[in-house]
Amino acid sequence: MRASQFFISTLKEAPGDADIVSQKLMLRAGMIRKVAAGVYTWMPMGLRTLRKVEAIVREEMDRAGAIEVTMPVVQPAVLWQETGRWDKMGDELLRFKDRHDRDFVIQPTSEEVVTDIARGELKSYRQLPKNFYQIQTKFRDERRPRFGVMRGREFTMKDAYSFDRSAEAAGQSYDNMFAAYRRIFDRMGLTYRAVAADTGAIGGDRSHEFQVIADTGEDAIVYCPASDYAANIELAEAVAPAHARPAPGAAMQKVSTPGVKTIADLVAFLDCPVEQTVKAVVVEGDGEDGLPVLLLVRGDHELNEVKAGKLAGVASPLAFATPDSIVAAFGANPGSLGPVGFKGKVYADRTVAVMADMVTGGNEDDVHLTGVNFGRDCPEPVVVDIRNVVVGDMSPDGQGELAIQRGIEVGHVFYLGTKYSQEMNATFLDDDGKPKFFEMGCYGIGVSRILGAAIEQNFDERGIIWTDALAPFTVVIVPMGMARSEAVREAAEGLYTTLKAQGVDVLLDDREERPGVLLADSELIGYPHRVVIGDRGLKEGKVEYRHRRDEASTDVAAADIAAFVLGKLGR
Amino acid sequence: MRASQFFISTLKEAPGDADIVSQKLMLRAGMIRKVAAGVYTWMPMGLRTLRKVEAIVREEMDRAGAIEVTMPVVQPAVLWQETGRWDKMGDELLRFKDRHDRDFVIQPTSEEVVTDIARGELKSYRQLPKNFYQIQTKFRDERRPRFGVMRGREFTMKDAYSFDRSAEAAGQSYDNMFAAYRRIFDRMGLTYRAVAADTGAIGGDRSHEFQVIADTGEDAIVYCPASDYAANIELAEAVAPAHARPAPGAAMQKVSTPGVKTIADLVAFLDCPVEQTVKAVVVEGDGEDGLPVLLLVRGDHELNEVKAGKLAGVASPLAFATPDSIVAAFGANPGSLGPVGFKGKVYADRTVAVMADMVTGGNEDDVHLTGVNFGRDCPEPVVVDIRNVVVGDMSPDGQGELAIQRGIEVGHVFYLGTKYSQEMNATFLDDDGKPKFFEMGCYGIGVSRILGAAIEQNFDERGIIWTDALAPFTVVIVPMGMARSEAVREAAEGLYTTLKAQGVDVLLDDREERPGVLLADSELIGYPHRVVIGDRGLKEGKVEYRHRRDEASTDVAAADIAAFVLGKLGR
Repeated sequence: MRASQFFISTLKEAPGDADIVSQKLMLRAGMIRKVAAGVYTWMPMGLRTLRKVEAIVREEMDRAGAIEVTMPVVQPAVLWQETGRWDKMGDELLRFKDRHDRDFVIQPTSEEVVTDIARGELKSYRQLPKNFYQIQTKFRDERRPRFGVMRGREFTMKDAYSFDRSAEAAGQSYDNMFAAYRRIFDRMGLTYRAVAADTGAIGGDRSHEFQVIADTGEDAIVYCPASDYAANIELAEAVAPAHARPAPGAAMQKVSTPGVKTIADLVAFLDCPVEQTVKAVVVEGDGEDGLPVLLLVRGDHELNEVKAGKLAGVASPLAFATPDSIVAAFGANPGSLGPVGFKGKVYADRTVAVMADMVTGGNEDDVHLTGVNFGRDCPEPVVVDIRNVVVGDMSPDGQGELAIQRGIEVGHVFYLGTKYSQEMNATFLDDDGKPKFFEMGCYGIGVSRILGAAIEQNFDERGIIWTDALAPFTVVIVPMGMARSEAVREAAEGLYTTLKAQGVDVLLDDREERPGVLLADSELIGYPHRVVIGDRGLKEGKVEYRHRRDEASTDVAAADIAAFVLGKLGR
Repeated sequence: MRASQFFISTLKEAPGDADIVSQKLMLRAGMIRKVAAGVYTWMPMGLRTLRKVEAIVREEMDRAGAIEVTMPVVQPAVLWQETGRWDKMGDELLRFKDRHDRDFVIQPTSEEVVTDIARGELKSYRQLPKNFYQIQTKFRDERRPRFGVMRGREFTMKDAYSFDRSAEAAGQSYDNMFAAYRRIFDRMGLTYRAVAADTGAIGGDRSHEFQVIADTGEDAIVYCPASDYAANIELAEAVAPAHARPAPGAAMQKVSTPGVKTIADLVAFLDCPVEQTVKAVVVEGDGEDGLPVLLLVRGDHELNEVKAGKLAGVASPLAFATPDSIVAAFGANPGSLGPVGFKGKVYADRTVAVMADMVTGGNEDDVHLTGVNFGRDCPEPVVVDIRNVVVGDMSPDGQGELAIQRGIEVGHVFYLGTKYSQEMNATFLDDDGKPKFFEMGCYGIGVSRILGAAIEQNFDERGIIWTDALAPFTVVIVPMGMARSEAVREAAEGLYTTLKAQGVDVLLDDREERPGVLLADSELIGYPHRVVIGDRGLKEGKVEYRHRRDEASTDVAAADIAAFVLGKLGR
């Protein structure tokens, strides 16, 4: 492609409302333009990159035996009512009425439509397994769209759905997709982790997220450097400490703690180690007594709400107790709560369960207790894992200590079981002649999101650094003063023609711009391989090559440059 | 592709609500499945064909120098309010509110968004001309979706928008797109006509429709077999008869015509030639007197509402007068109306203008007049072209008589001038340093609609007949009893491998189905080239080739079949 026939539109500054580096760089590099909050036009440079992502995803899905379809963007509510998602999903499901006052949604995913297709088309076990996928426009009406294409409202997603005869076969489909996802992200050249993820209300133990590693990621990924253990923080198990609980060493004492509301206040006021304090979190219960439930984690630990939400006796979805119900149940306001004297259900995190002489709230405003011991001062609690792991925790597989990275979720594989097939009565005839519900899995890839994630992982102060696989153009030829110098023109056109003939995705930046603009644009846009051709160099028979990650350019003999570049591309 | 790894899902009967042959065949061939009225899932077989259309369109748009972008499906109302289309467009514009109660539309076209891009990105005449296009999901909330993908609500459209410095340059962009469209439809192998079309309220004389010829088409296309004149019926000029008006030959007479309401009634009652009768159509005027306007066409002609809508003094948009206003102005009800005694404005079609001794309504219920003559019995009318042409009319270019065909509109090129750029204040700096409005054109192709149109043009009682360019697979290999016969398997696999190696888009139908099913499916789906391989033939060293249009199969030596097929493909 010649730049003069393409459309390059770079900006010196990103618009003020851009809130993350990938969004700023995509705007500056002319990849996207904002149309509304979370809604973008894909400009030529961005679309080209998006298509590279799509092509890799499509090739690997096809290779894995999945079959492409395209389900509609606009879907009738009646299907969404069958599964109950019409009511259960929040405002992120965009609902609207057509001219005849019939209800529709704009698809955020397509479980309903694909299950409707399966129940119409897949009649016999002989037709199984099947995996249908689409690469299609999706819409989620995010309350606060942000981070550009990473949390936009309109986006492109690859969603696949497998239909199997049995849970075992569904497991094979899952493994097949898992392997395809590895190939996809490997091919893209991204650094990522596949991490075990929570399966939520659906249950089962088969769910993995594919996380692109980036410091700016929204998700915390837990892993063990000494093994292959990896999970997202919602799921990662905090194992019990290896030691037993020490015997009580102090008597329980009331301490007046005026104005002390937080653990930090408490530690400062009492000058005690934070590891001796216990944080009390009160959540709504689901019992008829209306009593809330008390959750205890060590003062320096964080409650894991996903884990807490699954506890017996706790309201679903998890809800923090209101101040009124806390005062009614504890006789005190938040800030001074604890287990001593509380009549309701108490869950203690595994770490709390081995503490002695704890510092807790006194269930009386501005009063705390020291020297609190389970079994002596209050009943033994139910011991559970309800906290987020922290760096240095023992890995659940016992192979070493846990580390934590930030990540951006770009893919998700999920074993659904018969949830949707049962809700929509989608069955096939098995070899015993009886109808059975499809065992399903769903597999998503955030196609447009990948671009943002790739940039968050690969950029510097000058701009984007694309991998070869994702770059809008793999190679850019930057002629210095092509309009003035016949030698430069000839060398640039010659290299362009040679590389094109070899099937290289090369851009000849023949725009009539100053050399400084061309060079800055090439770094902002982030083509991985750049050849600069100038009169001065040519006189010595040289041109300059530079990989976008290189500190400096390399002089290459002009006669060898095509072969040199092909070598860099691994040809 | 092997059928066992693809997804073929044919139906014996189309669902009952399918209302046109292409819709029935697309459903039966498993190309689409209905999700809601006018909303379909593209099944693998249909999607493959859709992608072929998209690829041809994309290649030719790129070749023509247009630049691909992707504008969002969901667009903010604020842009549509700038052009006034938010209010002006009817219910086919799907409007909705997001969770924050802000107004949005689902794009039916993208003039607003692309003009917004242009005013942001194209600052100087040096950047012009530019042509941005997208192949993207569109939605029109049709009152009565029908004809499958031909008049669906969700559909795929290629829409392009050119931005030019001057009207002259815009004309070159228009010609460039016109030529690209010719290449596109030529490559698809469709029989089509480019016809001049009405430019509606925008004005200008540059608008062409690309119409695929099919008896079932919704549009009437007028053309002159002796020249290259072609126009749609809305635009086609009905020229004045060559002869002058004869002198009056009869006196005007009142005739009592009880119960006579229509021209047919009148002709039967008076036993007169229909060519002597005049049809009176009353439409609302735009004058302060509130008087309606009388339009006269010959009894056997049809009023052309597009032409009538442009007449001075006629309300815009065209509206037929209400019975009350007709009685008030004429003193009679519809069925007995005419020019004699009417005080308002009268337009006569050119054919009516040369009539003498006309039969008209008498402006008195159940009364008609014979022997009516302009200039004697009523004032001379204003003479205009307000009727649809009919077969045998003289071509406006004087080269012969007009013929009429039915067509399906699949493309439209349109010179917009500065309508949108003015409404959205979209300017560039010209070489005189002054801001000027962009001269624009818009260019649509109904990508998904083309499939329906291609089928309406090419089918028989057994199914679809695809052209090589559009077929889901160009060649199908149908092995008879591949599971039973090693010879059949070997021959089929060998041919499949050979053709694939040559880059042929070939399907090996290796499904375990009865031969009758495989053969019927191949004709229903309509692959253009079929090779049937059976044991009996192989024993004589023969296989059968049949083009989908052939009456019978041709025996071909098994050893020569690959070369034979390649020959048929023009290789």
